[in-house]
Amino acid sequence: MKILVTGFDPFGGESINPAIESVKLLPDTILNAEIIKSEIPTVCGKSLTKIDEAIAKHNPDVILSIGQAGGRPDITVERVGVNINDCSIPDNEGNQPCDEPIYADGPDAYFVNIPIKAMVEKMKENGIPASVSNTAGTFICNHVCYGVRYLTETKYPGKKSGFIHIPFMPSQCTNKRNMPSMDLGMIAKGLEYAIEAIIQNETDVKIEGGATH
Amino acid sequence: MKILVTGFDPFGGESINPAIESVKLLPDTILNAEIIKSEIPTVCGKSLTKIDEAIAKHNPDVILSIGQAGGRPDITVERVGVNINDCSIPDNEGNQPCDEPIYADGPDAYFVNIPIKAMVEKMKENGIPASVSNTAGTFICNHVCYGVRYLTETKYPGKKSGFIHIPFMPSQCTNKRNMPSMDLGMIAKGLEYAIEAIIQNETDVKIEGGATH
Amino acid sequence: MKILVTGFDPFGGESINPAIESVKLLPDTILNAEIIKSEIPTVCGKSLTKIDEAIAKHNPDVILSIGQAGGRPDITVERVGVNINDCSIPDNEGNQPCDEPIYADGPDAYFVNIPIKAMVEKMKENGIPASVSNTAGTFICNHVCYGVRYLTETKYPGKKSGFIHIPFMPSQCTNKRNMPSMDLGMIAKGLEYAIEAIIQNETDVKIEGGATH
Amino acid sequence: MKILVTGFDPFGGESINPAIESVKLLPDTILNAEIIKSEIPTVCGKSLTKIDEAIAKHNPDVILSIGQAGGRPDITVERVGVNINDCSIPDNEGNQPCDEPIYADGPDAYFVNIPIKAMVEKMKENGIPASVSNTAGTFICNHVCYGVRYLTETKYPGKKSGFIHIPFMPSQCTNKRNMPSMDLGMIAKGLEYAIEAIIQNETDVKIEGGATH
Repeated sequence: MKILVTGFDPFGGESINPAIESVKLLPDTILNAEIIKSEIPTVCGKSLTKIDEAIAKHNPDVILSIGQAGGRPDITVERVGVNINDCSIPDNEGNQPCDEPIYADGPDAYFVNIPIKAMVEKMKENGIPASVSNTAGTFICNHVCYGVRYLTETKYPGKKSGFIHIPFMPSQCTNKRNMPSMDLGMIAKGLEYAIEAIIQNETDVKIEGGATH
Repeated sequence: MKILVTGFDPFGGESINPAIESVKLLPDTILNAEIIKSEIPTVCGKSLTKIDEAIAKHNPDVILSIGQAGGRPDITVERVGVNINDCSIPDNEGNQPCDEPIYADGPDAYFVNIPIKAMVEKMKENGIPASVSNTAGTFICNHVCYGVRYLTETKYPGKKSGFIHIPFMPSQCTNKRNMPSMDLGMIAKGLEYAIEAIIQNETDVKIEGGATH
Repeated sequence: MKILVTGFDPFGGESINPAIESVKLLPDTILNAEIIKSEIPTVCGKSLTKIDEAIAKHNPDVILSIGQAGGRPDITVERVGVNINDCSIPDNEGNQPCDEPIYADGPDAYFVNIPIKAMVEKMKENGIPASVSNTAGTFICNHVCYGVRYLTETKYPGKKSGFIHIPFMPSQCTNKRNMPSMDLGMIAKGLEYAIEAIIQNETDVKIEGGATH
Repeated sequence: MKILVTGFDPFGGESINPAIESVKLLPDTILNAEIIKSEIPTVCGKSLTKIDEAIAKHNPDVILSIGQAGGRPDITVERVGVNINDCSIPDNEGNQPCDEPIYADGPDAYFVNIPIKAMVEKMKENGIPASVSNTAGTFICNHVCYGVRYLTETKYPGKKSGFIHIPFMPSQCTNKRNMPSMDLGMIAKGLEYAIEAIIQNETDVKIEGGATH
């Protein structure tokens, strides 16, 4: 099995983005699955183009994207992406769409098709705060959450995709009042457990599938 | 120089208290100062008796007490202790005083006499979220914050004391919604930086004092 | 024009639900539109059956449902309903579905088709805190938000529907720590402004439509 | 009985301060006590000078000061004022003291001597969210909370004083994200109930006092 894990580049004047930093800390193999890591730009459209190219090149079974949701205290696994760009701030190339669909011919939303509850449970069992989130917002994170599901539905059938939001790192919070944070090593460990849950789920599905013959 | 660092025992049905666990992780020597570690009971009165005995035995220059303020996202250095016990829950021996003075002959409050701003800055410079707090509450943490200052004023003149509140550990938050946490290793590292700031301040004071002769 | 406004009955041991109480405070006519008020049960399925019957009986142009989101500080206009029942607590008849679709043949989500931004602006212009929300949760409020859109798509084409979440009332917060609230009169006034924005939008659409001939 | 109630003037670029606005809404008589209202400047020192003059002129039995604590969801009755000015922003005349005592010869803190628990209970019984607060911060509100107690201890023995913090008004929150607010009329009503509790307490004390003769 192959899993493509993407992380955003630094954004909004910050010199570092824990999203891509935590992805870099992942091992190259998790439970016999190959982990392919990709940095994507915090830009509407281009982020999806880069992921589309990576899917074409690597043919992964699962695409898992990682972004930061500063202010959330735990690792959150997103349930759904919605077909809208509604940006309160510009992206890294100055785009700031307002209430525009991501894909004009797409449905209003897609649920992700990775095992969100099992991923959360696996992290919590291992002492890492995690929960299901019902909104990825309406900025680039949702753009990628929805957009990759659109790609897997329309262009790459059979592939799975989903999105995980991570908290601020502690060093980002030394000058922010009352903002929760999580150690980068723990974030990376959490992502590893979440990916283990995806792999175990895929394996179970295949075994169950095989058993019906 | 000798520094007595106290941490509370487990409390409220929890099997572990990060306060004493983080104290245990401290090195035995910080910047040539000897660190003496003491676990104290989460009990009104007895907590102070135990500290009083430890002061008598070890004759420390500084007494720094550590407690947990679950819900706070960063390490907070307390500015002041107030002369009141007003407990919304019982302590570990079932005491639940309401609006009673800690020491009937004590003033309404004592500012701590450790360098709270320098301690916060030292932690932040090293990437650890920290801030000054203006209330230690009215439960056992404040009881010890005020009570030790009372002891240093009335029985052990010349000694310094203060109080640091630490956040939940991540493992305490896997079943709490939206509660911030901090890695235990980072908490211990933060305490070490805070203690360094205390030691540097004491040393500066002595050098300055010497220079006036 | 006719607008059906629904509010939930008391729930979770509470003797009062500000949702239906604020609906009761609405005038019977807003900007020449007739306001029809309906109390609906906090029960999966039955809530939608009751609304379906009210639509059949009154033939409203717009269906606006009101529910409580305790903890939110402002009036929130929901953007989207998702096709899932995932209840952390039982409804008023003890149902507690977990990750089940609301309608097995429905899409993953529907955006509401009322002017959410204009509704928020109208409330804010009039001094009432309001914002767009991107999640109505996965309990009865989302159940109705999604379900009524499903009904309008499949059974009542041309009709509009949407959902507004309101905060706790102050009297609900006298024994809750740190929970924001909003005066019931102000909540009702906010709903009235939101409904005005819906009516003005419908009227504009019709005038614009006519102007193209 | 006479009660002097003070409220701060507008501050920090705002054109209105709910503190003085809520004070203006108070009746001139509460339970046979005369209510004297005074607007005070949001300025270190001058605020206390103005109150000192008002005490000299009106000879009130109780001085109750009202300030805003934006972000708190309920009306909070302060327990204690501390002898420090430590301002993160300048006052209305540009003063921004850092870690300076308010009165060099004052103790570290004073508990207020009004019945804080009874005041909170009276508000809650009447449906208004309220709680005791253990910190008035280290800016002008604490300056007045501490400073007036200093005046009553040193210059006007026998007089009572205290401080109440009020939330944002709704109109202040239409452009602030996720900030709780309270209707100005409800704030004023809350202050009235709090003042009733003070008067009832004073009366009870006098009756009890008389009964001992």
